[in-house]
Amino acid sequence: MQRLIKPLVQKNESKILFVVLDGIGGLPLNGKTELESANTPNLDALAKESACGLHIPIAYGVTPGSGPGHLGLFGYDPVEFQIGRGVLEALGLGLEVKRSDVTVRCNYATIKGGIITDRRAGRIPTAESINLTEKLQKELYKIDDAELIFTAGIEHRFVVLLRFPDPLEPDAAMVTDTDPQNEGSPPLPPLPLSGNAERLAITVEKLISKAEVILRDEEKANYILMRGFSKMPHFTTFEEAFGLRAVAIALYPMYRGLARLVAMDTPSLSGTVEDEIRFLKQKYDEYDFFFFHVKKIDSYGEDGNFEGKVAEIEEFDRLLPEILRLRPDVLIITGDHSTPSIMKSHSWHPVPVLLKSPYVFGGLSSAFSERQCTKGELGIFPTVNLMSLALANSLRLKKFGA
Amino acid sequence: MQRLIKPLVQKNESKILFVVLDGIGGLPLNGKTELESANTPNLDALAKESACGLHIPIAYGVTPGSGPGHLGLFGYDPVEFQIGRGVLEALGLGLEVKRSDVTVRCNYATIKGGIITDRRAGRIPTAESINLTEKLQKELYKIDDAELIFTAGIEHRFVVLLRFPDPLEPDAAMVTDTDPQNEGSPPLPPLPLSGNAERLAITVEKLISKAEVILRDEEKANYILMRGFSKMPHFTTFEEAFGLRAVAIALYPMYRGLARLVAMDTPSLSGTVEDEIRFLKQKYDEYDFFFFHVKKIDSYGEDGNFEGKVAEIEEFDRLLPEILRLRPDVLIITGDHSTPSIMKSHSWHPVPVLLKSPYVFGGLSSAFSERQCTKGELGIFPTVNLMSLALANSLRLKKFGA
Repeated sequence: MQRLIKPLVQKNESKILFVVLDGIGGLPLNGKTELESANTPNLDALAKESACGLHIPIAYGVTPGSGPGHLGLFGYDPVEFQIGRGVLEALGLGLEVKRSDVTVRCNYATIKGGIITDRRAGRIPTAESINLTEKLQKELYKIDDAELIFTAGIEHRFVVLLRFPDPLEPDAAMVTDTDPQNEGSPPLPPLPLSGNAERLAITVEKLISKAEVILRDEEKANYILMRGFSKMPHFTTFEEAFGLRAVAIALYPMYRGLARLVAMDTPSLSGTVEDEIRFLKQKYDEYDFFFFHVKKIDSYGEDGNFEGKVAEIEEFDRLLPEILRLRPDVLIITGDHSTPSIMKSHSWHPVPVLLKSPYVFGGLSSAFSERQCTKGELGIFPTVNLMSLALANSLRLKKFGA
Repeated sequence: MQRLIKPLVQKNESKILFVVLDGIGGLPLNGKTELESANTPNLDALAKESACGLHIPIAYGVTPGSGPGHLGLFGYDPVEFQIGRGVLEALGLGLEVKRSDVTVRCNYATIKGGIITDRRAGRIPTAESINLTEKLQKELYKIDDAELIFTAGIEHRFVVLLRFPDPLEPDAAMVTDTDPQNEGSPPLPPLPLSGNAERLAITVEKLISKAEVILRDEEKANYILMRGFSKMPHFTTFEEAFGLRAVAIALYPMYRGLARLVAMDTPSLSGTVEDEIRFLKQKYDEYDFFFFHVKKIDSYGEDGNFEGKVAEIEEFDRLLPEILRLRPDVLIITGDHSTPSIMKSHSWHPVPVLLKSPYVFGGLSSAFSERQCTKGELGIFPTVNLMSLALANSLRLKKFGA
């Protein structure tokens, strides 16, 4: 997509507001989806005069994680632009990952006589993991020339970030997982898969031995397993690709982290969607493109809380007029994936989208919902094309060929 | 498709029933297609609560043969996975093709003074062709180390299968056609295009000379022309690709042969669709995936018998409740291509499909027909993606990325 688009990009004064209602797509419960059940007069009125459709994040039948889901929305083919698991985990925990960093997903595990007996250390409670992680951090803050940053996750999970003194070669994190992926086996050694990864492998080996000594009196969490060694990928920046000065307005660190992958500005922000709107207004003159992320709709979907998801959708609808008052040249409202409450998880279903600009037909969908969007003028299309439509509708793309 | 899907596949206890109504798609006669003309209360009720759409077997405007049509349904890109014409012809005649076999499409032809005067030997009647083929078989059962198996087809057509003592190299059948494709030319010599094909070329040269002697007193069919030298392709098996134990339930050898290309189980079966249903019930516990093929709808389409096609569709609709009683986790009903009766042939038109699972919207199509399927939630999509949807809807695909 970018290869075709980049030479066509031109700049102008238009504003593109790209609202991502995380996990917006749903499935029917008693005949109606969350969007169909919600009372959303503002979204529905907008859908009537917008171009509507549904987009497919990765491929037919493929359920996206949040990382690939957002990369697609940002106009980066998520199959081509892959993000290491360690980096995603670190972004999710709110860590800032620099070009000199290697991130690793870790588990506390139980080892006996050199054999892993429980890969998850009995899923120790998060509070215990926080304590252990602090203990590791206190004693292991530097190995060789790498600074270490430990961050606890949920239950037995944590992240180690190794910060080296200078930016790393692209293949510097190519070290094999130490997690054997099954119990009853010994842990695997961290092996470098490239010459540039040897330094990391040596440091990691020391890290594991030292952690073993620190954890040796623990009953369950007496060992650490490491996988997904990865570094920040070096993607074309959003501004290089599309000529847009972009800012991410997101309350959760994961989504600011994903925006940072493509070098959007990612100011820290907390509070509610109303705070996000306030921030949007403040920054409206400074940027061309606003990635506006609304998280809670997805969270209720993941919890299987149909009514909660409906209420969050209604809350967004209530705030929508505030956003419309800014009169962006192009307004897109969509999601990064579906999260049907009845599935309590992300799903593969195409995601409803509406696009409002002066250059649409409209009049085909009577509401903003999955089923009404099937009637729309955008059809069902790969997510990665949404950025091209955003650019086209803001008159930021030149003609292809004479 | 498979490169993306394979690492995501996980196994569970679900059952996928994939019904192929061969040639189901049609075109209107007096305003209504065959599906629209048929009285199909069961299919229509199912369509109302299913995800509906249309799929494109090969590409816009491209009419598929049965081979590529089925490969696409099985999740094998039919442009990438090509099947030799000799193999297809042999499968169509019910031959079992082994890894040590080379198959060839042959014509009886008329030759005079070394020049082909009729490439089809005046389209001799099938009965005559059967006699000649038996005569050839009687005298030519072995040349060099190849065992020969002759099988008559329709009119002037027949197939030769050369069975070598051991499995062949991938390029062992790369021999050029002897059919010059026009009359007034001499036949072409069979030339090897690779070192591994030299053995075959030598054997084929002997075969042609010997056949010429046997046929020399025939008025019309005094020569044989050979083309499409090919061997069984070595595709990833269906089970390797999708983790599904699969069985083909099909009355015609061609479709069992196509299923054998991807290593489905292909038990021999004869009778009617009712016998197929009986067999499906018997085998229901043994497999995860059932390719259930219904042939006659296509046959009437090919004959231009609009009413006959309508009646066969109604007959399937009558039997559908029997199938529904099995309550498969995912039920797909579709075709491998369209065969409009008014065209008396396969066509390029997208093929209607319905997919029933707990994870669909439904409510968009009021009947199972070409026009009602255009309103459905699946849209119009490449056939090869149908398998991804089958896997997704049976919860057999993991998330892509975190």
